[in-house]
Amino acid sequence: MSVPPPMPQPVPPTMPSSPQVIVEAVPNFSEGRRVEVVDAIADAIQAPGVHLLDRSSDWDHNRSVLTVAGAPEAVMEGLFRAVRAAALLINLFEHRGAHPRLGAADVVPLAPIQGITLAECAALATALGRRIGEELGLPVYLYEAAATRPERRNLTDVRRGEFERLVQEIHLPGRAPDFGPAQVGPAGAVVVGARPFLIAYNIYLRTTDVGIAKAIAKAIRESSGGLPAVKAIGLLVNGRAQVSINLVDFTRTPLHVVMDAVTELAAQAGTAVERSELIGLIPQDAMLQAAAHYLKLPGFNRLRVVENAVQAAGSE
Amino acid sequence: MSVPPPMPQPVPPTMPSSPQVIVEAVPNFSEGRRVEVVDAIADAIQAPGVHLLDRSSDWDHNRSVLTVAGAPEAVMEGLFRAVRAAALLINLFEHRGAHPRLGAADVVPLAPIQGITLAECAALATALGRRIGEELGLPVYLYEAAATRPERRNLTDVRRGEFERLVQEIHLPGRAPDFGPAQVGPAGAVVVGARPFLIAYNIYLRTTDVGIAKAIAKAIRESSGGLPAVKAIGLLVNGRAQVSINLVDFTRTPLHVVMDAVTELAAQAGTAVERSELIGLIPQDAMLQAAAHYLKLPGFNRLRVVENAVQAAGSE
Repeated sequence: MSVPPPMPQPVPPTMPSSPQVIVEAVPNFSEGRRVEVVDAIADAIQAPGVHLLDRSSDWDHNRSVLTVAGAPEAVMEGLFRAVRAAALLINLFEHRGAHPRLGAADVVPLAPIQGITLAECAALATALGRRIGEELGLPVYLYEAAATRPERRNLTDVRRGEFERLVQEIHLPGRAPDFGPAQVGPAGAVVVGARPFLIAYNIYLRTTDVGIAKAIAKAIRESSGGLPAVKAIGLLVNGRAQVSINLVDFTRTPLHVVMDAVTELAAQAGTAVERSELIGLIPQDAMLQAAAHYLKLPGFNRLRVVENAVQAAGSE
Repeated sequence: MSVPPPMPQPVPPTMPSSPQVIVEAVPNFSEGRRVEVVDAIADAIQAPGVHLLDRSSDWDHNRSVLTVAGAPEAVMEGLFRAVRAAALLINLFEHRGAHPRLGAADVVPLAPIQGITLAECAALATALGRRIGEELGLPVYLYEAAATRPERRNLTDVRRGEFERLVQEIHLPGRAPDFGPAQVGPAGAVVVGARPFLIAYNIYLRTTDVGIAKAIAKAIRESSGGLPAVKAIGLLVNGRAQVSINLVDFTRTPLHVVMDAVTELAAQAGTAVERSELIGLIPQDAMLQAAAHYLKLPGFNRLRVVENAVQAAGSE
């Protein structure tokens, strides 16, 4: 058996400097059935300089998710217009759907993509929340990195009891909005904040037994002692049991770890994973991480991808 | 069970126009042990405008692979200088290694990356081969998309018998070089050509039995009735059985299909895959394809990756 001598490694190419500031927003709206309403909101969000990257609606959730990115000023203007359109077109007193919600424009998360920090995104979220409160007269709650109280960091806590209970409780001191009036109209409340890039990933099981999905969700979510940075609920969607997952920090728990855990738990429950779906977008690193794991490539890094290597080398 | 209505799909973002022409080259040199020789070749290849993206050497193969990219003129100049350096520093009469080879600069493949076709890369390869033959006095064979005869398309055929037999046979009509003299010196011959992006991927087995690696290689390679676009040989590397794979068109056979086939064949032979390694770089699409397969994401496409979506949207 021969022993290889140490070989010199290539000098890592210089990383490109960020030529522009890009912020991402993934606003969720409580309408997934009336196409014309979602159209109107999608039209409103496309202020000059805002790129609509993805759009997805779910009938059972009765909810739509838009993904936009661009320069901060442009994205803030587009979000304000979209929240205004949703508030005019969606009546929460008539809304039914499988997904928890507080308002027409239910949650507006900002995430840093390039040339901007999470703290700077939190400052943008605060400014946007203030404008929504003052100009649209809607109650606004700030969450995650923009939260003003520790108990408002977690979206699940802010949304507890949903719209129906907020109508009854908004006058209580603990539910006082950060901006806007302490009263709830048909558009409900808006939750605005900043967070790291969130991967929304649903796994469908080969069963109609929603109990299995709920049990798996409970086993994997952080709040009940499962995997770090994982939120999960079990739902029945189109007659299929679905584990609906929000992975809030894929550097703490990679997507493939979630997938493998759900696969194993499903097998233990006598069923199997049928397929998955991504809501919105995913960072390249999360996909590379999964591919490297399954292809058994230890130490893989993004500069082994030819497009990334050429881009990085080109900036020297 | 509710039936979802058809929802409008987002307009696909315009793809960015290619701002510059980028060609990749992955020259292989018959030296993987003497660091100073590989250093000299790596120095020579870095003509102005050439980006050295990757460098990898293998003791058992006694072979090094450099990956460079850049504008065609720059890359052609860098390759010429590297071939000249290798021809001066490597003596094939003294060379021993596990990998088949014909010369010091053994094979010089060009691949299109951006703004250039495979046929245009073949024309570049032909011009480079002519210059090597005329200015360095080395026999040159053109292969793949640049081949001048059908029987020279396949590198395995061109390299048959290796350096040792070429010394005896180069005077035969069938072995007449495309450029340069019909005689072999210590630097051997150079094979130059153009091809689609090639993924070089080695899979290590948990066994020292090279017979198992050879049997698996035979089962998966196209030439013996296996998977399309797959070339494979079995080797013993650092005391481990290794299936060494060249995937010449990952759009015909994805990398994960190769991985799953080797995993299954290894299990049938009573062993298992230990780990893999990538030689050089890999296109983003090949990694996304693998991740989407294992994460069970049907219909995934590269615009679901946030960086790609922002880049594409930014070019509108």
